[in-house]
Amino acid sequence: MGSVTGSVDLAGCEWLQYDYGAARMARGRPGLFTMWRYRELLPIPDGPVRYPVPIGGTPLLHAPALRQTLGTPYLWIKDETRNPSASNKDRATALVIEDGLRRGVETITTASTGNAAVATAFGAAAAGMRAVIFVSTDCLPEKLALMTQAGAWVFQVREGYAAAVDLSRAAARTFGWLDRNTGANPFTIEAKKTVAFEVWEQLGRRLPDVMIVPVGDGPTLVALDKGFTELVSCGLTTRQPRLIGVQAERCQPLVRAWLDEPTRPAELDPTATIADGIAVLRPAIGDAVLEVVRRDGGAMVSVTDDALLSAVATLAGRAGVGAEPAGAAALAGLEKAIEHDLINRTETIVLLVTGREVKAGQATYDPSRVTVVETLDEVERALTF
Amino acid sequence: MGSVTGSVDLAGCEWLQYDYGAARMARGRPGLFTMWRYRELLPIPDGPVRYPVPIGGTPLLHAPALRQTLGTPYLWIKDETRNPSASNKDRATALVIEDGLRRGVETITTASTGNAAVATAFGAAAAGMRAVIFVSTDCLPEKLALMTQAGAWVFQVREGYAAAVDLSRAAARTFGWLDRNTGANPFTIEAKKTVAFEVWEQLGRRLPDVMIVPVGDGPTLVALDKGFTELVSCGLTTRQPRLIGVQAERCQPLVRAWLDEPTRPAELDPTATIADGIAVLRPAIGDAVLEVVRRDGGAMVSVTDDALLSAVATLAGRAGVGAEPAGAAALAGLEKAIEHDLINRTETIVLLVTGREVKAGQATYDPSRVTVVETLDEVERALTF
Repeated sequence: MGSVTGSVDLAGCEWLQYDYGAARMARGRPGLFTMWRYRELLPIPDGPVRYPVPIGGTPLLHAPALRQTLGTPYLWIKDETRNPSASNKDRATALVIEDGLRRGVETITTASTGNAAVATAFGAAAAGMRAVIFVSTDCLPEKLALMTQAGAWVFQVREGYAAAVDLSRAAARTFGWLDRNTGANPFTIEAKKTVAFEVWEQLGRRLPDVMIVPVGDGPTLVALDKGFTELVSCGLTTRQPRLIGVQAERCQPLVRAWLDEPTRPAELDPTATIADGIAVLRPAIGDAVLEVVRRDGGAMVSVTDDALLSAVATLAGRAGVGAEPAGAAALAGLEKAIEHDLINRTETIVLLVTGREVKAGQATYDPSRVTVVETLDEVERALTF
Repeated sequence: MGSVTGSVDLAGCEWLQYDYGAARMARGRPGLFTMWRYRELLPIPDGPVRYPVPIGGTPLLHAPALRQTLGTPYLWIKDETRNPSASNKDRATALVIEDGLRRGVETITTASTGNAAVATAFGAAAAGMRAVIFVSTDCLPEKLALMTQAGAWVFQVREGYAAAVDLSRAAARTFGWLDRNTGANPFTIEAKKTVAFEVWEQLGRRLPDVMIVPVGDGPTLVALDKGFTELVSCGLTTRQPRLIGVQAERCQPLVRAWLDEPTRPAELDPTATIADGIAVLRPAIGDAVLEVVRRDGGAMVSVTDDALLSAVATLAGRAGVGAEPAGAAALAGLEKAIEHDLINRTETIVLLVTGREVKAGQATYDPSRVTVVETLDEVERALTF
C-alpha cells in the first residue's frame, strides 16, 4: 500500500499517513510528450517552441474491455480527443501558429464549420493571435458561440462553405495572414503526420498492421501515410501499415471513387449524415487520399449513421472514450472492414479517434463578433472597427 | 526549418521533404506523465497499474496572453480539463477503481449530478467495471445521456441529492461495491493531492505563493493542502502556499462561515447559480476546508455569476482554455482576491481550472438504464434484470 502507516482525522475527514521522506517523491523530471518531440522532421527552425500549450503526445489505449467485446486482442485506440480543443485539428493549428509566431504574423484564418474552426479560435487565443473564421450562414449558433467565446472574429458567407473557403484564402493572400485552410497549407499535413510517429513509438518502435481513419477532406489520412513513409525514408522500418479510410454512407465520394462505381445523389449529401466532421462533398485532397490508400494496400469503406451512433456508444461504454460520430467512424469502419475480410481480428489494429464535441460556456454567440460579408472590403471594414 | 530540403507534389498536395535518416527521429522513450508517478505516496500496493487510461500529468500553462491582460507576470493555469472526462474528478475515480481492480470488486457507485458521475461512468467503462450512479429526479436529461452512453446504471431518487447519497452509500455497504462518494472514501483525497505534487514539480520543485481553487464539497481544496503538507513531511519544502477557495455568491456557505457572518437564504440556493459544479448547500467536508484554509494563511471568497461568465470568456479568449463556469471560478476568484488585497499581482499564482462540459453523442438517455427507486431492494431488482 505505497508506504501507508495509518491515518489521522482532520475535521471529520480521514487522512492517510505514510512513511514520509524525500525518497518517497518521484525522481527525475516528469516526462513531457508533445508533437514537438519530432521537430527535426517538422518545418520549424531551431530555438524554443513558442506555442504555449502542449499538443499531441495523446494516449495509445489498449482498451481491454473493448478488445474483449470485439474479439480483437491487438486493438489500440489512438485517442486524439485528449488534445486541448478535443480534436486532432489542434496539431495543425499549433504548427501553423508556431510558424506565424516566429515570423511575426498576428492573424490566422480558416474556413470551417467544425473542429478546425474551434481549434483555430482556441489556439489563436492561447498564442495571443487574432483568429478570423469564415463560415456558411447556416453554421449552428452553438458552434459560433464556441468561436466567439475564444475571441475569434467570424464572417458568415451566404454562398456556402466553398465560398467561405475562397474568401478565407483570398484574405490570407491579401492581408498576409496565416492560411490554415485544409489542403492549402502543407504545414497542416506536416503536423498531423506526427500521429504516425507517436503510434510507432508507442508500440515500441513497431508498426501496426492496419490503421483505420475517418476521412473528410483527407489530410488526416494522407498525413498518416506521410509519417509512415518518412519512417521508411529514415531507414527505421521497411514497410507501411495499410490505411483504411472511413466515410459516412450518405456522403461517400471517395469510397465510390475507390470502388470505381457511379455515385447516386443520396450518397453525396453532406447534410444527410450525423458525421458532419467528415461530410465533405468535394474533398480538398481526395486524389491524394486515393493514391496513398492504394499504395499502402488499404481500402475505403462507408458506414451508416446507425453504425456511427453504435460506435459512439461502444467507445464510451467499452473504452471510456467520448467521441462525436465522425470521431468514432474508425470503430464503425473496423466492423465493416472485418465483415468484408479487409482485416483479420488478430492483426495489430489502431483506431484513430479524431475528436469529441465540447460545449461553450454559453449557448449564444457574441453578435458583435459575427458579420455577414460578401467581399474582402467588407471584411477589412468590419475588423477596423 | 528542421531539415527541410524541398518539396514534391502528391496528387495536387504539397509534401515537404527532409534530409531523412535514423538520427532525425526522437531518441529515448517518450515521457509518460501520470499521477501514478507518485505511487509511493498513494495507497496502492506494488505491481503494475491496472487502470487502463493515463490520468493526471495535466499541463501547467504559463498563459502569456492572460498574464499580459491581467498584469500578473507569474500566473499559471493548472489545466485539469485535459483529463479523459475533462475534469479533475478523473483522478479520484481512477484511484478508487485501481483499488477495486486489485481487490476484484466489479461495481463502483457514487451519487452526483455532474462531473463525478460522468468521470465514474467513463472510468468504469474503460476498466470493464459496472457503474451505478444515484441522482436526484431533477438531474438534466443531457447529463443522464452522458452516463448511460458510457453504460452506467442510473437510479433517480425523488427525495433529492442528499437521499441519493444515502442510498449510494447504503448500496456500497450492503453489496460490497466501491464507494466513490465525495467525503466518504479517503482515496478521493489521496488521488486529488497529486495535483499539488505536479504543480511543485512543474514549477521546478518550487511552490507557488498562492493557489486558487473552486470549492463545492471541499475535497479538491483539502487534497491540495494534504499534498503540500506531505511535501513538507517529506522534507522537500518548509512552507505551504496559501489556498484561496472560491464559491458562487448564491451558494456560499463556506465563505459566510469563513467570514463568521450570518448567511441569508439568497446566499444558500444551489439552484440559483450557473456554477452547478460547486453549488453545494452542505459541503461534505466543509469543516476541513475551513481548517486548512486558516492553517495555510488563505481565504475564502465569493464571486457573482456575471464574474464567472466573464472568467469563462477570459480563459477561452486569453488562454485558449475551455472551462465550465464552476471550472473557471479560480479566475473569477483571483480578480476578487486582488481587489481585496488578498493577493499581490507579482506573486506566483496558480489557478486550478477544474473542468469543462463535454457533450454526449446524443441528446437523449437510454431509458432502459434509468430507474426511479426508493429502496435498496428496488435497486437490486432492477440490476438483476
